[in-house]
Amino acid sequence: MAIALIPGLGGASQAQGPAITDFYLENGLHVVVIPDHRAPVVTHMIWYKVGGADEPKGKSGIAHFLEHLMFKGTEKNPGGFSKQVAELGGQENAFTSLDYTAYFQRVAKEHLGAMMAFEADRMTGLALTDEVVNPERNVVLEERKMRVDNDPGSQLAEEIASTLFTHHPYGTPIIGWEDEIEGLTRQDAIDFHARFYTPNNASLIVAGDITAEGVRTLAEATYGQVARRAEPPPRLRPQEPPQRADRRVRLADKRVEQPIYQRHWRAPSYIRARNGEGEVLDLLSQILGGGQTSRLHRSLVVDKKVASAAGAFYGGSAVDETRFGVWGIPMPGVSFETLEAAIDEEIARIVGEGVTDDELERAKTRLVADAIYAQDNQSTLARYYGTMLSVGGKVEDLQLWPQRIAAVAAERLPEVGRLVLTNGKSVVGLLEGQA
Amino acid sequence: MAIALIPGLGGASQAQGPAITDFYLENGLHVVVIPDHRAPVVTHMIWYKVGGADEPKGKSGIAHFLEHLMFKGTEKNPGGFSKQVAELGGQENAFTSLDYTAYFQRVAKEHLGAMMAFEADRMTGLALTDEVVNPERNVVLEERKMRVDNDPGSQLAEEIASTLFTHHPYGTPIIGWEDEIEGLTRQDAIDFHARFYTPNNASLIVAGDITAEGVRTLAEATYGQVARRAEPPPRLRPQEPPQRADRRVRLADKRVEQPIYQRHWRAPSYIRARNGEGEVLDLLSQILGGGQTSRLHRSLVVDKKVASAAGAFYGGSAVDETRFGVWGIPMPGVSFETLEAAIDEEIARIVGEGVTDDELERAKTRLVADAIYAQDNQSTLARYYGTMLSVGGKVEDLQLWPQRIAAVAAERLPEVGRLVLTNGKSVVGLLEGQA
Repeated sequence: MAIALIPGLGGASQAQGPAITDFYLENGLHVVVIPDHRAPVVTHMIWYKVGGADEPKGKSGIAHFLEHLMFKGTEKNPGGFSKQVAELGGQENAFTSLDYTAYFQRVAKEHLGAMMAFEADRMTGLALTDEVVNPERNVVLEERKMRVDNDPGSQLAEEIASTLFTHHPYGTPIIGWEDEIEGLTRQDAIDFHARFYTPNNASLIVAGDITAEGVRTLAEATYGQVARRAEPPPRLRPQEPPQRADRRVRLADKRVEQPIYQRHWRAPSYIRARNGEGEVLDLLSQILGGGQTSRLHRSLVVDKKVASAAGAFYGGSAVDETRFGVWGIPMPGVSFETLEAAIDEEIARIVGEGVTDDELERAKTRLVADAIYAQDNQSTLARYYGTMLSVGGKVEDLQLWPQRIAAVAAERLPEVGRLVLTNGKSVVGLLEGQA
Repeated sequence: MAIALIPGLGGASQAQGPAITDFYLENGLHVVVIPDHRAPVVTHMIWYKVGGADEPKGKSGIAHFLEHLMFKGTEKNPGGFSKQVAELGGQENAFTSLDYTAYFQRVAKEHLGAMMAFEADRMTGLALTDEVVNPERNVVLEERKMRVDNDPGSQLAEEIASTLFTHHPYGTPIIGWEDEIEGLTRQDAIDFHARFYTPNNASLIVAGDITAEGVRTLAEATYGQVARRAEPPPRLRPQEPPQRADRRVRLADKRVEQPIYQRHWRAPSYIRARNGEGEVLDLLSQILGGGQTSRLHRSLVVDKKVASAAGAFYGGSAVDETRFGVWGIPMPGVSFETLEAAIDEEIARIVGEGVTDDELERAKTRLVADAIYAQDNQSTLARYYGTMLSVGGKVEDLQLWPQRIAAVAAERLPEVGRLVLTNGKSVVGLLEGQA
């Protein structure tokens, strides 16, 4: 399992990028083709618009558990998928996020049709028996133990999430709560699969040495044979009520070697933004805490020497309201209070005084350049498109993103900053050692 | 709407109390009869085993909203119920809690049959049109505005609840979150009613100048004619995952005239207790913070003069894990830190050193005496039984309660105290004024 957290949306402008095309199959499957002829390989990704935040009450972890079970074989291919991918010299990967679940393979281009046939097969033909499901549940429980129970940082991350999103399902960990994972059954997996794994709830992204027509022919012969299995309802999750009190969580554990201060605010995602707040927050995050020229780094690490590292992030790719965060690692002997005061000062300064034209230009250039560099990596670019479509955006949203970043006016940064980075609407998380 | 929070379960021993009987009608309705012949009146209560914590995802407030709509009339009685109760000289009341919803009337005994006929009628015949439902939704929204939006103390209470119960539905306010109340429809109310308002999901408590046989005859002629409408599933709510970090919420508002410090821990309810923890926690709450002889009062108010009032509570009547809490109102000029240190000291002392035999005996006497006094009030006693049955207990649990309290050994108080009142497993809530 990997958890997607793409700080910016990235993107490619039409002028500079490859000629990306998209179309729909008759059964509703959305197909995006990203030509890249530098090598005779293809990246094949199928993205389902379903993640941890779409799970039924009490069934946390089922989206991720199903991701595991997708590798267990089908009626046609009882041996499972991975061995065959490996035999064809391919690489594969899969991950579950709060909003989507995706399956990737990278293979020589002549095997693209085989990958499509495999994925189309397991979209409907998944064969799940208790003999397969029950041991895999233990694998997931073990995964949770390793990743969370043994890691105070992950524990605090779960605490921050569940304290920031007390009602919205973004507060529930993707891997699930232990007692609910224990209760997940074969039937839960079958039901979830039948409800969400349907061509009209998926996006196919193919990047590589292939044409749109070539993809269409292969896709129609494979995915095109899969009937719509269900009509997934609109993704109306319970929304988080207004936060009215400052919230603070503190975890002390003797295994912590490096204390960390974090503060997370709820923030509009690109999809939820009404007035371009997504682009503004990406720029704000960049200026406040993106790398060594950022304000937090210069102030906390270089000038005041209260932190050994500091930064900011914005998780703009989300169906619902998401997060903006800042963090810092205190220098030995520096208290959280001192570090927090220094961070608060930078936040007050940026929302109070705004940013300089020079800072803004540099941030825009850097964000857009990152997006252009991303085009060099076939799978990174494919991921951008898969993510965008899976959270409810369109192909054009990514293509226009550099222009939209370029168009952000300086006065919008303090304006949106005041809206989002308000006192009393955040969770502060403190991780510290213990004697 | 009233929210039930009975600190102790109260109860009546068989030896001292009236001859309480209970039986079931064929359709599953559980009937409890509490004779009380001091006056020719009866208290009639119907309790449904459904409350805020049983609501579907995204439909918070539907249990309470339905309670309002239950007064809107049926096909047989389009004018509604209340006018008729009033015409008969009766009083009525209703309330929704997290675990149950109850409807009460107190009338001259000759009208008991009429009350039963009314309640049986609205158990099935509720007539809901948009003309009735839509304005009532505004009434509830207005109620929320008055009770919560205008009251920082209620806002903090919601924050504490949602931060203590981030996953379990006890973190959701009974009245509902505003955006979800706005979305509640006539159909939501009809569905909820059809699913939960069925005789096999209800308890009828009749207290007053009546015999068991008299109640049975009337009940069979009225409630007995109602078929089972549904088979409500077991009340398996998502359970709260282990808490790993200290949590703290702080609300500052200029309307706050009196700051308050609160700390709430998750604690087993009577129903969830495996080894009699409920009785122990009631005693612990009594000794720590029950009235002016309690430790918190003597230490904080009398000796140290850091608080003008202080106390403790335990909400033992709950289907699932519940709360134990302590609170204090700081004297002017006393900081929360000072007050908290004094409270922490008392908690450390009681879990570290336990209680004296003398303290324990006085606490037992007081709790049992309160329960006996409660028998003097017909409706209080009826409420005890209704609550107990609605959270999954039995009539005997209440009848044996005084004996169980009497049997608690002194060493169990620090033992259970250590289990429940641990550091890092609580939410501290701070309410303060603002210039």
